[in-house]
Amino acid sequence: MAAQDYKFEGWMGLDKSAADGKMVWQEFPKQKPFEETDIDIQITHCGICGSDLHTLRSGWGPTPYPCCVGHEIVGKAVRVGSKVKKNIKVGDRVGVGAQNLSCLKPECYECSNGWEPHCQHGVTTFGDTFPDGSNSYGGYADYHRCHEHFVLKIPDGIPSAEAAPMLCGGITLYSPLKNNGCGPGKRVGIVGVGGLGHFGVLFAKALGADHVVGISRKAEKKEDVLKMGADEYISTDEDKDWAKHHARSLDLIISTVSSPNMPLMEYLQLLRTKGTFIQVGAPEDKLPDMNAFAFIAKGVKFGGSAIGPPWQIEEMLNFAVEKKIKPWINEYPMDEANKAIIDFEAGKPRYRITLVNKKHADV
Amino acid sequence: MAAQDYKFEGWMGLDKSAADGKMVWQEFPKQKPFEETDIDIQITHCGICGSDLHTLRSGWGPTPYPCCVGHEIVGKAVRVGSKVKKNIKVGDRVGVGAQNLSCLKPECYECSNGWEPHCQHGVTTFGDTFPDGSNSYGGYADYHRCHEHFVLKIPDGIPSAEAAPMLCGGITLYSPLKNNGCGPGKRVGIVGVGGLGHFGVLFAKALGADHVVGISRKAEKKEDVLKMGADEYISTDEDKDWAKHHARSLDLIISTVSSPNMPLMEYLQLLRTKGTFIQVGAPEDKLPDMNAFAFIAKGVKFGGSAIGPPWQIEEMLNFAVEKKIKPWINEYPMDEANKAIIDFEAGKPRYRITLVNKKHADV
Repeated sequence: MAAQDYKFEGWMGLDKSAADGKMVWQEFPKQKPFEETDIDIQITHCGICGSDLHTLRSGWGPTPYPCCVGHEIVGKAVRVGSKVKKNIKVGDRVGVGAQNLSCLKPECYECSNGWEPHCQHGVTTFGDTFPDGSNSYGGYADYHRCHEHFVLKIPDGIPSAEAAPMLCGGITLYSPLKNNGCGPGKRVGIVGVGGLGHFGVLFAKALGADHVVGISRKAEKKEDVLKMGADEYISTDEDKDWAKHHARSLDLIISTVSSPNMPLMEYLQLLRTKGTFIQVGAPEDKLPDMNAFAFIAKGVKFGGSAIGPPWQIEEMLNFAVEKKIKPWINEYPMDEANKAIIDFEAGKPRYRITLVNKKHADV
Repeated sequence: MAAQDYKFEGWMGLDKSAADGKMVWQEFPKQKPFEETDIDIQITHCGICGSDLHTLRSGWGPTPYPCCVGHEIVGKAVRVGSKVKKNIKVGDRVGVGAQNLSCLKPECYECSNGWEPHCQHGVTTFGDTFPDGSNSYGGYADYHRCHEHFVLKIPDGIPSAEAAPMLCGGITLYSPLKNNGCGPGKRVGIVGVGGLGHFGVLFAKALGADHVVGISRKAEKKEDVLKMGADEYISTDEDKDWAKHHARSLDLIISTVSSPNMPLMEYLQLLRTKGTFIQVGAPEDKLPDMNAFAFIAKGVKFGGSAIGPPWQIEEMLNFAVEKKIKPWINEYPMDEANKAIIDFEAGKPRYRITLVNKKHADV
C-alpha cells in the first residue's frame, strides 16, 4: 500500500453562521487515524441533506465546531485496509451514508439483528466522535475515511450523482416503506415532497403499491409528483377539507415533514384501520398534540424510522438498478457548496442537490 | 318458539350522578325489537368495566340517558332466532362483549378483514343506537338481546363469573398482545395492573413471553402481580430512576392507564429498539407530549387497540381453557350494583368485579 499522499480537507462550519453559506475550506483538525479495517475514499460526489443544515446551525443541539457536514458520499476507494473482508478493491466506486460506525459486537442487540442505525454506540458520519477521540467529518470534502462495514459498493447502472442522495435520502424512505409492507394491495401516502419525499414516491411506486399519493402544502409541485409516478396529489393548503375528503384512504404514510405545526391529527385521519404512520423528519421541537382515541378507534400506529442498515442500503441500490429508479437531482460544483446550501434552504432543489467534486469526478 | 315472557329491565343511569352509585332499576324504554338473527340472553353475570363508569358520568362525551351499562355479559340463551347460523341452542351458556353490531357487509373493509370493532357502523353494547333507531342497553340487567355474530358460546371449563370479565377486559389485553407478537423470546410490560392489566399479566405469561413486568404506580400490588405470574414489578412511585434503570428492557408494552399525566416518554424509554407501545386505556383528555426523536432513535411505535373481534374472543376463551387462566375476581350481587360501582371507582377490586344475577344464576 502506497503511503498516503492526500490531505483530508473540506468545507468547515465554524459556528452557526455556517448555515447561511459561511462554510470555510480547511483541513480536518482531528482526522481519524487509518485502521486496517478502514477504507479511504476519494470523494467525487456528495448529496446535500436537511441534516447538514440542522447540524450547521446547531438545530438539534450544540454542534462541535469546526464541523464538515455531508453524509451522502460517493467516490473511489484509494486505500483499502489489510483486514477489510468485503470485496472492495482500490479503484472501486463506493459510497457511505449517514452512519460511519457501530459497535458491531455479536452481543449487541441492535448490531446482531442488522439494526446498526439503532446501536447505542453508533457514530454518525459527521459531528460525532470515534472511540479513539477523533472526530467524524462528512463529505463536503476531498476524502473520507470509513470502516468497511459502512462502505458500500455502488452497482454499475447508477450514476454517482444519483447514487449519492440515495445513501441517506433514499434509504430514509426505502427502509420504512419496505419494513411496513409497502407493496401490491397497499395505498401509500408521502407527506412532504421535497428531497426525501420524492424518493418516497419513486420507491413506493417501484415497490408495487396500488396507489401512491403525494401530500404537500402547496399545489405547485403537483405536476412533478405525478410525473414521478404518484397516482394522486393532495395540496393541504389548497384542497378544501382534504383530511375529510381523503379520510381512511391510506394504509401507510411516511412523513418527511419536520414542523411542530404539522397537522398530525389530520394526517392520521387519512389512515385506514390498522394503518401505520411513520415519521422520518425529526422536528427540532416536540410533536403536535395527539389524541388516544384516534389510535384506539382505528387501531393505527405512529412510529419513527432512522436511515437504514448497510445490508438494506445495498438491497435498495440493487432494487434501484433493477427498477431503473431515476432520482431528480440538481448538480452543483463542490466549489459552490456555500451557494448550494443557501439554495437548498430556499427550497430550490428539484428535488435533491448533489455536489460534484470536479477535482476527482470524471467530468 | 314460545312467546316472550320476560321483560327487559336493568340498572339505569339517569344523569351524571349515576356514577356516584345512583343507578335506578327500570324497564328499557326503547328496547330493540327481536329479529330472526338475534339471540335473547337471560343474564346470570356481568363484569364491571371502566367504560361503564366513563359512560355513566358522560366522561367521553354526553351519554344518552337513561342508560344501562355493562358489556361483559354471560347468561343463558332463552330465544334463538330462526335465521341464526351459529351452533347456539336455547339453554346454551353464551356471552356478549362490548360490541353488539357491525355492518357485516362483504364490502366493508373492516368487517371483511375480521376487524369488526373498527367498523364505522359498529354499535356498542350500551349507550348506542341501532339502525332502526332503538337503543342499546347493557348487562346490569335481567336480559340482553344481541345479533348472533356478537354472541359467543362460553366453553365448558370457564366458570361464568370468570368468563364475564374476559369478554371486554380480557380481550382488550389479549388482542394487542397476540397482534403484536407476544410470545417466546419477547419481554413484555403491562402498565397499570388493575382489572385490565391483570389480564395482561396472565395472558402475556400464558402466551409464553420470556419476561413479564407489571408496572404500576404504587408498590402495594407487587406481591399479587408476582403471584399472577409476572417475573418483575416496577413501582413508578417508589422505584427511584425506574425509567433509566429499566431502559431498553421491553419489546412490547400494553398500557391500560388512562391519565393524561402518565409519564409516557418514560414508558417509551423502557422499549427496546423496534419495540411497540399499545395504548388501550382511553384518556378523557389528550395524550402527554411526545418527541419525534424518541421514536426515530429506536424505531419504536405507538399504537392503539380496541377490544377484539368475535373470532378472537372465541380464540381467547379456548386459550384460557387450554392454559387454565384464572382471572382474579370479586363477586357482587347484581342487586348491589350501585355499591359495586362505588367500590370499583375506589380501586377496591382485586382485580375485576363480576355482578351475579341471583335470580338467574345457579347459586
